[in-house]
Amino acid sequence: MSNRKGTEAERELIHLFWSQPPWVAIRVAGSGSMKYPSPDIIAGTRGRLLVIECKISRSDPIYLPEDEIGKLVDFGRRMGAEIYVAFRFNRSPWQFVQPHQLRWTDKNFIIERSTTGYNFNDIIRHGLL
Amino acid sequence: MSNRKGTEAERELIHLFWSQPPWVAIRVAGSGSMKYPSPDIIAGTRGRLLVIECKISRSDPIYLPEDEIGKLVDFGRRMGAEIYVAFRFNRSPWQFVQPHQLRWTDKNFIIERSTTGYNFNDIIRHGLL
Repeated sequence: MSNRKGTEAERELIHLFWSQPPWVAIRVAGSGSMKYPSPDIIAGTRGRLLVIECKISRSDPIYLPEDEIGKLVDFGRRMGAEIYVAFRFNRSPWQFVQPHQLRWTDKNFIIERSTTGYNFNDIIRHGLL
Repeated sequence: MSNRKGTEAERELIHLFWSQPPWVAIRVAGSGSMKYPSPDIIAGTRGRLLVIECKISRSDPIYLPEDEIGKLVDFGRRMGAEIYVAFRFNRSPWQFVQPHQLRWTDKNFIIERSTTGYNFNDIIRHGLL
């Protein structure tokens, strides 16, 4: 996935949250000179805080390096946030999984086309922490 | 304040939070094509969530347009976060004020060299919401 496509995907998801007030969402600035682990998106509303790693893909499965998920979980725990990977294959709707729902292979976590996650409405309506 | 200086200032503040685990902090990505109100920085740790607008200046006072503060407050309220303006004149230490502590002039909120805010330790040790 190119950076441009990744950024577009993140923006799309951010629009979704803003379309459901009082939810707000922001993109985290690229690391640049900063080397701290951080998610792609932070979304929240009073009493709910979500850190989200964002994946779109044409190819199946999506590979998620252990390190990437480890950093996401670490960040989310320190913030006391709900932690999700949001994914979408091509134009299929966004789905959300929690890190413990990811399948582990030899070297990576994976999300497959057959993976069933929560949809956006599930996520904003009900806390799943 | 140039964009570059502004970004440097934000990074400096982010380093400060990361130097005090379990605090974490991120820079919010520049608006780009997104037109949503958002702060410069989000910082947090379990049970605390801070949205921060960041200002460094050589000139006194610092002018803060009503609209900028309005958007910050709106975002922070929707997130249920503590809301701060972090400011620093030249190399003086960072100080933090809450929006209701800002002085109002004809057209802007202002922060003056004589403005006394909370220091960084106050902020991370005690909730002020």
